[in-house]
Amino acid sequence: MLYLIGLGLHDEQDLTLRGLEAIRKSDEIYLEGYTSKYNGSLQELERLAGKKITTLTRKELEETPGENILKKDKTNALLILGDPLVATTHTEIILSAHAKNIPVKTIHNASIYSAIGETGLQPYKFGKTITIPYPEGDYFPLSPYDGILENNKAGLHTLCLLDVKADRNRYMSVNEACELLLRMEEEKKDVIISNKTKCVGAARIGGDTIIRYATVEQLKRTQFGGPPHTLIIPGKLHYMEEEMLESFPKD
Amino acid sequence: MLYLIGLGLHDEQDLTLRGLEAIRKSDEIYLEGYTSKYNGSLQELERLAGKKITTLTRKELEETPGENILKKDKTNALLILGDPLVATTHTEIILSAHAKNIPVKTIHNASIYSAIGETGLQPYKFGKTITIPYPEGDYFPLSPYDGILENNKAGLHTLCLLDVKADRNRYMSVNEACELLLRMEEEKKDVIISNKTKCVGAARIGGDTIIRYATVEQLKRTQFGGPPHTLIIPGKLHYMEEEMLESFPKD
Repeated sequence: MLYLIGLGLHDEQDLTLRGLEAIRKSDEIYLEGYTSKYNGSLQELERLAGKKITTLTRKELEETPGENILKKDKTNALLILGDPLVATTHTEIILSAHAKNIPVKTIHNASIYSAIGETGLQPYKFGKTITIPYPEGDYFPLSPYDGILENNKAGLHTLCLLDVKADRNRYMSVNEACELLLRMEEEKKDVIISNKTKCVGAARIGGDTIIRYATVEQLKRTQFGGPPHTLIIPGKLHYMEEEMLESFPKD
Repeated sequence: MLYLIGLGLHDEQDLTLRGLEAIRKSDEIYLEGYTSKYNGSLQELERLAGKKITTLTRKELEETPGENILKKDKTNALLILGDPLVATTHTEIILSAHAKNIPVKTIHNASIYSAIGETGLQPYKFGKTITIPYPEGDYFPLSPYDGILENNKAGLHTLCLLDVKADRNRYMSVNEACELLLRMEEEKKDVIISNKTKCVGAARIGGDTIIRYATVEQLKRTQFGGPPHTLIIPGKLHYMEEEMLESFPKD
């Protein structure tokens, strides 16, 4: 038996009663430590669970799951930040478990996909989600820009997930994301992002949340503090969405 | 002070530790009882909270919030199914609280927006969300169909939220939603939905989940049991999404 347990957005207080019960029943508990950054205390989670928690790298989880989470005679738990089935890599785990006849039970939790409602933007009005990756050498994909363009044309908002390189302790900031979008604009010249474009920058939604609705020029300079950060390119705004956005501090 | 507390997808076991702490600190606790159906036990929630919970109708919450949730000298909690800020009506509550200088704290929880990952479909590949309403008299909007068409063209999946008329105890089923989409197709004739179209029907994700990947013809006849139900019109499928969809029972 394998539990995939969502940890929610911020810290150990976001665990659900169902999640807590499942980790207490588990023989071995693992934490997926590479798709996001956990702002909670692992020690406190271990205290709640009553046992040790092992943090797994992407390599351990993807290449040798049989040595950690997937054991036929055990009840194991994999803790995942946010809601467990948002990243493709976690769907792969279910398919591997099926292949070994290990039943999987998912315990859901909060995720950025609906928590962005805290900005005032309506979740149903978002189009396709994009990810802004760190450029590496010649690798500088323009597909995120195309995604924003498509959503813009349809009047939809764009949630930009920002790159995480946990092994190098790099978590993309709103500031970096703004710079990268401006670089994409320079190459594509479709005039969807400029220093004057008003966007939503957010940090640590569900924790000590900061949300700012400001121009890209301002967001490039705003101090948002630690990860995770999120950037949203708004589409057509309903007056109530605008009223909520304007209600956030202007510093 | 007003807490907006997400109850998550299924029952009282989905409450987070943070949510539990907040309801225990609250003077008065209200449940929003009209945008979805709570499958948990209100008595058990009251036991956890240590006090009575009052269920509010849409009218009470939208027209006279000052008589229930919005009281300046109290710490009150409003319990909302799923994640609290998904419905527009809850954003309105925040704006009303701001106007009365009452601070609001949101406690997030699981929502269908990411929990659909349990179908194997990737949340980032969804386009705009649509709602399929019950027709009433001459009211039979075709905009949901247009939404699916736009998403289809872009290869994106469509999450269809199904209508809820809690006051009349009506919760739209996958079966009803399929019939309505076929009626829209008859009027629009863009050939996006037919009896042969393969869709995803789901019920009670996060609880005793049923997920079926089948033709509209089959989904019209499938018994999904009690609410809430969800219908998804898939866009272009990645092979891993297809593998997950095909792994669900075929009955």
